[in-house]
Amino acid sequence: MTDLAPPVDPIVPFLEPVFDLHRGGKLETRSTVPLRGADDLSLAYTPGVARVCTAIAEHPELAHEFTWAANTVAVVSDGTAVLGLGDIGPAAALPVMEGKALLFKEFAGVDAVPICLGTTDTEALIATVRHLAPSFGGINLEDISAPRCFEIEERLRAELDIPVFHDDQHGTAVVALAALRNAARVTGRPLSEMRAVVAGAGASGVAVSRILLAAGIGDIAVGDSKGLLHPGRTDLNPVKAALAADSNRAGHRGSIEGALRGADVFIGLSGATVAESAVAAMAPDAVVFALSNPTPEIEPSVARRYAAVVATGRSDHPNQINNVLAFPGIFRGALDVRARTVTEGMKLAAAAAIAEVVADELSADRIVPSPFDPRVAPAVASAVAAEARSAGVARR
Amino acid sequence: MTDLAPPVDPIVPFLEPVFDLHRGGKLETRSTVPLRGADDLSLAYTPGVARVCTAIAEHPELAHEFTWAANTVAVVSDGTAVLGLGDIGPAAALPVMEGKALLFKEFAGVDAVPICLGTTDTEALIATVRHLAPSFGGINLEDISAPRCFEIEERLRAELDIPVFHDDQHGTAVVALAALRNAARVTGRPLSEMRAVVAGAGASGVAVSRILLAAGIGDIAVGDSKGLLHPGRTDLNPVKAALAADSNRAGHRGSIEGALRGADVFIGLSGATVAESAVAAMAPDAVVFALSNPTPEIEPSVARRYAAVVATGRSDHPNQINNVLAFPGIFRGALDVRARTVTEGMKLAAAAAIAEVVADELSADRIVPSPFDPRVAPAVASAVAAEARSAGVARR
Repeated sequence: MTDLAPPVDPIVPFLEPVFDLHRGGKLETRSTVPLRGADDLSLAYTPGVARVCTAIAEHPELAHEFTWAANTVAVVSDGTAVLGLGDIGPAAALPVMEGKALLFKEFAGVDAVPICLGTTDTEALIATVRHLAPSFGGINLEDISAPRCFEIEERLRAELDIPVFHDDQHGTAVVALAALRNAARVTGRPLSEMRAVVAGAGASGVAVSRILLAAGIGDIAVGDSKGLLHPGRTDLNPVKAALAADSNRAGHRGSIEGALRGADVFIGLSGATVAESAVAAMAPDAVVFALSNPTPEIEPSVARRYAAVVATGRSDHPNQINNVLAFPGIFRGALDVRARTVTEGMKLAAAAAIAEVVADELSADRIVPSPFDPRVAPAVASAVAAEARSAGVARR
Repeated sequence: MTDLAPPVDPIVPFLEPVFDLHRGGKLETRSTVPLRGADDLSLAYTPGVARVCTAIAEHPELAHEFTWAANTVAVVSDGTAVLGLGDIGPAAALPVMEGKALLFKEFAGVDAVPICLGTTDTEALIATVRHLAPSFGGINLEDISAPRCFEIEERLRAELDIPVFHDDQHGTAVVALAALRNAARVTGRPLSEMRAVVAGAGASGVAVSRILLAAGIGDIAVGDSKGLLHPGRTDLNPVKAALAADSNRAGHRGSIEGALRGADVFIGLSGATVAESAVAAMAPDAVVFALSNPTPEIEPSVARRYAAVVATGRSDHPNQINNVLAFPGIFRGALDVRARTVTEGMKLAAAAAIAEVVADELSADRIVPSPFDPRVAPAVASAVAAEARSAGVARR
């Protein structure tokens, strides 16, 4: 067996608790029906199952009733943009997708299957997910690098009649909008009078900017590593160019920090840092969401000197902007009504529902619910399902 | 919502127990780790999971240790040859694949995910499974029509370094060989002196014929709907042509029933019927495996008038040739040693192990164990793992 994989490097100590927890993986499949003997098996498998197969062949919509697909989401990644680790490949991405599957089940009773694909080719990835679709009630795209993620999601949304949702984009966007709605309440200004600056024009930066525009933010300027997006820039990919055309009505150019002068809101999604002086120059009662993980764009304790509301992506600070507030309930709601897609309206409804959960408890340190607040997923699911129905994308 | 799927035909009554059992599907995903709060989640998901991702990125073989993939099999079908129902499509095939997933878990502790693909294109199917491979420890192909199934399996076996096993071929073949070994013992003849006739040259017919040849059967003639395969036929696909070249040393031509005159063994895998007179003309102490389901090629009670041993695919007769005797243990053994493939030797070892389980209990009505015999899967797994090791395809 000398031609096979070498033994693991003995100098690497895989002894931390996190490795113990992960040994053998974190997920299993289980039967939901009794299997006590031949009679049970003759119903769950041959010959009885043939009756169910025939019924579905004649009435395809019965697959929703009589298979697990209607409650099952594929958590699909190609491992190209995993956490802050970058392009680590499908095998190394699998623990994240398994973890995501646990969250789906834990928070919303959604069965989820981690699917890490051995291709980074956009066409191959789209074709693969299209071929997988009959087995699932929804597709959660995850940790796919920008700008490929935009085309992949857009094409799959157009091709498939089940929800396709790139969580790095829209999960973050929904929770950020929820948080900003409540930050606006706490600081006594309507969203329509706020000027925001977003640092980062990758998956989450674009999606957050888009949802804030859809929600009616006063103005928003978005920056990437080369500065603010504006229609005069010739180095923009199509997604950024479209966003440049739709944002920055004030016509800011130059650096993100320059645009922060007098701005009401900063949302950091870039992994870069922002100088204390730039935050100090924001408008009174400023709102700072420093969401990069594990290192926020500005130290929260520093930001708090100047800003009325500070949020991060971290669990050890108040106001954690955590996608888990959004995706379980969004899929729960979409699956409950067999939605054909996730509309912009469903995302806005989800954000409103998240914000509303803490409406009676609002304070500068409580603009979003805790990730473990059991009220969140049902509230989001209910709002999303209702919006799907009124938008006409629900199948029941 | 008038543009959506119409309501279910109200005249179809989905009230039988089998529909009750299938409502909502038969499978779920579950966490195998505690999720009691923020601390647990910070290990199973961010930030702790990043440590595991990084370790796998640096040492890819660690994916076997720290993800569920090493114990997880994709049960992949395109719905083109489902049970006896034919090409009913992926959605209608899903209940069968879910059932198969239950059997994997129940009999061998293997996690299994039903994957019904929305394509019947051979290249697309191969590419899709190739892209899925990083997420799984093995691929069980199922209910894919012949002759496409041969190329699909062969290509995937060559491309992937995990077990790829088309159960309709090899599961049936392994159990048929086990049964025939014991039928040979019961009737006091070595396999090498037996002449067999196989009716059916589809997935299972070809695989059964191949494994009997590999096991040293005396001679074997295989027939399809146009008669016996022989090198003179010009209407054969490449798989049948190769089998024609390797079988039928006696040079029989014409009908299956003609070849049965004086034959020791009949194995029916065709769905066609065989006349009582043809079975009556077989050699003394004949062995008849009438395996088509739900209607055997010849009524077992009629066959028993002439044959010393009769087996069927049905649970309501003695000697049920059921794939569940093979595939759970074969994958269990292959996964246990991280086999890169399933070799012919591993299949032969599995057949020998199944036969051996009832070696001390042999009779004409007990040539194979019951599908529920708990000794089978561990015995098969152990034999398969040992053979994988000695063949040099085990990774541990």
